[in-house]
Amino acid sequence: MKARVTVMLKTGVLDVQGEAVRRALGTLGFEGVEAVRQGKVIELDLAATDKAAAEAEVKAMCEKLLANTVIEKYSVEIA
Amino acid sequence: MKARVTVMLKTGVLDVQGEAVRRALGTLGFEGVEAVRQGKVIELDLAATDKAAAEAEVKAMCEKLLANTVIEKYSVEIA
Repeated sequence: MKARVTVMLKTGVLDVQGEAVRRALGTLGFEGVEAVRQGKVIELDLAATDKAAAEAEVKAMCEKLLANTVIEKYSVEIA
Repeated sequence: MKARVTVMLKTGVLDVQGEAVRRALGTLGFEGVEAVRQGKVIELDLAATDKAAAEAEVKAMCEKLLANTVIEKYSVEIA
């Protein structure tokens, strides 16, 4: 079973990486880019076969390791 | 218009970040994690209103800045 976790900075937290990308795009001539936020995506191959159990386990992974929940939010998709 | 770009290392390229996450999850007691790949996600707010034009522009951004196409693949979603 495959899981995809997306981790983004929470709204209101300054995203310096995203801001750097926005400026670089402007420098390269891409006009009309109003905002950029950058996050990470983590794809997991799991041995689990039960979708609900897999989702609960991946959420526990996010809370313990994959996301810093003080400043980051995460979403989990199980496929 | 919002665009989401996902950039992942190509299959076959050693993903040291993903491997580090896999080991850390094992150390924390999460069994059954067979493989982990880590990539980045970039969310863009665009002034463009035409979906096809926006997609073409974002693909150009990927080729020029957002992805290293020698070792990375990217996908673009326009919402």
